[in-house]
Amino acid sequence: MVMKVYGTVLSTATMRIFAACYEKDLEFEFVPIDMPAREHKKEHFLALNPFGQVPAFEDGDLKLFESRAVTQHIAHVYADKGTPLVCEGKSMATVGVWMEVEAHQFEPLALKLRRELIYKPRSGMASDAAVVEESEAKLAKVLDVYEARLSQSKYLGCDCFTLADLHPLPTMTTLKGTPVKKLFDARPKLSAWLADISARPAWAKVLAMRNQQ
Amino acid sequence: MVMKVYGTVLSTATMRIFAACYEKDLEFEFVPIDMPAREHKKEHFLALNPFGQVPAFEDGDLKLFESRAVTQHIAHVYADKGTPLVCEGKSMATVGVWMEVEAHQFEPLALKLRRELIYKPRSGMASDAAVVEESEAKLAKVLDVYEARLSQSKYLGCDCFTLADLHPLPTMTTLKGTPVKKLFDARPKLSAWLADISARPAWAKVLAMRNQQ
Ligand SMILES: N[C@@H](CCC(=O)N[C@@H](CS)C(=O)NCC(=O)O)C(=O)O
Ligand SMILES: N[C@@H](CCC(=O)N[C@@H](CS)C(=O)NCC(=O)O)C(=O)O
Repeated sequence: MVMKVYGTVLSTATMRIFAACYEKDLEFEFVPIDMPAREHKKEHFLALNPFGQVPAFEDGDLKLFESRAVTQHIAHVYADKGTPLVCEGKSMATVGVWMEVEAHQFEPLALKLRRELIYKPRSGMASDAAVVEESEAKLAKVLDVYEARLSQSKYLGCDCFTLADLHPLPTMTTLKGTPVKKLFDARPKLSAWLADISARPAWAKVLAMRNQQ
Repeated sequence: MVMKVYGTVLSTATMRIFAACYEKDLEFEFVPIDMPAREHKKEHFLALNPFGQVPAFEDGDLKLFESRAVTQHIAHVYADKGTPLVCEGKSMATVGVWMEVEAHQFEPLALKLRRELIYKPRSGMASDAAVVEESEAKLAKVLDVYEARLSQSKYLGCDCFTLADLHPLPTMTTLKGTPVKKLFDARPKLSAWLADISARPAWAKVLAMRNQQ
């Protein structure tokens, strides 16, 4: 039975799962959810994700949600296919640290900036300059820690590409299209790493899905 | 070499690691960090956690931070000691879902309420009633999902106690001492689960450390 990914090609959380599937060379069926019609708040979707958010995921009779739980399932269960995405022993603990850093240090600031710099302008609202300034200042400090890490290690978790690198990629790609880009550009190791992981064939396939829309 | 946990007994993130160590019957050395003196922002601590937050952790020459990365390291590497805390195969994917739910759905609201209802009053600031009301309303919806889950399953991840249950315990314990308690009390399955996991001997040891302070 082929896996199913429910979501939208514009959702960064959904893109995380697409990227993991392509890295692993796994076949999957994409089931688009009509967010403007609020399909994600309807009963049939709430049965897949009780929080009414995309993505949701099915692998046979296993139903999952929360994008990073899905990528970890894929990485561990399909260990013998495609890119490893996780590693063994001590290095795995460090991959774990950098997955948590994305979730707790990077993402909250990234989502705040996305809201101010993309969502608000798109719906005709003014972005709040004070919130942008404060969030950019905090994000700059977080990115300094990434820069220091990437000066010691080719990838965030270890010396090969893992989920620690894959998880921030969708949100970083989105922010690259905003003035936040200057924070990436000012950090050479981070920029080189971002260019490297953005050039992965699996990621090109995710962007192609988005651009076909 | 004995493990070292750097932090404070009042920090919920540090308590998560203590609980995991006690569940696993692992010896550890607790290294208190003087947060009022801002020790967590000093160079020797930043070498352990570049984000300048407690906890930090050492297991031999492995240095880790981010509490949930540490608990997962402990659960996987000391698999044969004490309480399992993780499980195998498909159930592990669901444990993963509920760890993500704690991190992305529960914790952001819990920390907002902790700030308004504990930190602000403690430092003589008024709590913002509108923020409290909005966060409580959102938290109520999240707890409805927990209640539904706990009506189907004895524990969040599977039918035994795992990290999915351990991770929210410190923050839930803190909120039980605020008016947020009413949201727990109104949900019988959630209340029974919280009473059950709060009665674990490992958790009693964590509370004893806190109370000795
Ligand atoms: N932590 C979740 C976040 C999911 C999420 O925020 N999804 C957004 C789209 S990227 C959504 O469905 N938003 C609509 C809503 O929250 O109502 C995950 O990683 O899967
Ligand atoms: N995501 C981190 C959060 C750590 C955290 O927020 N620690 C708090 C104490 S519970 C802290 O050090 N706060 C001081 C600060 O952020 O400057 C983890 O789980 O370890």
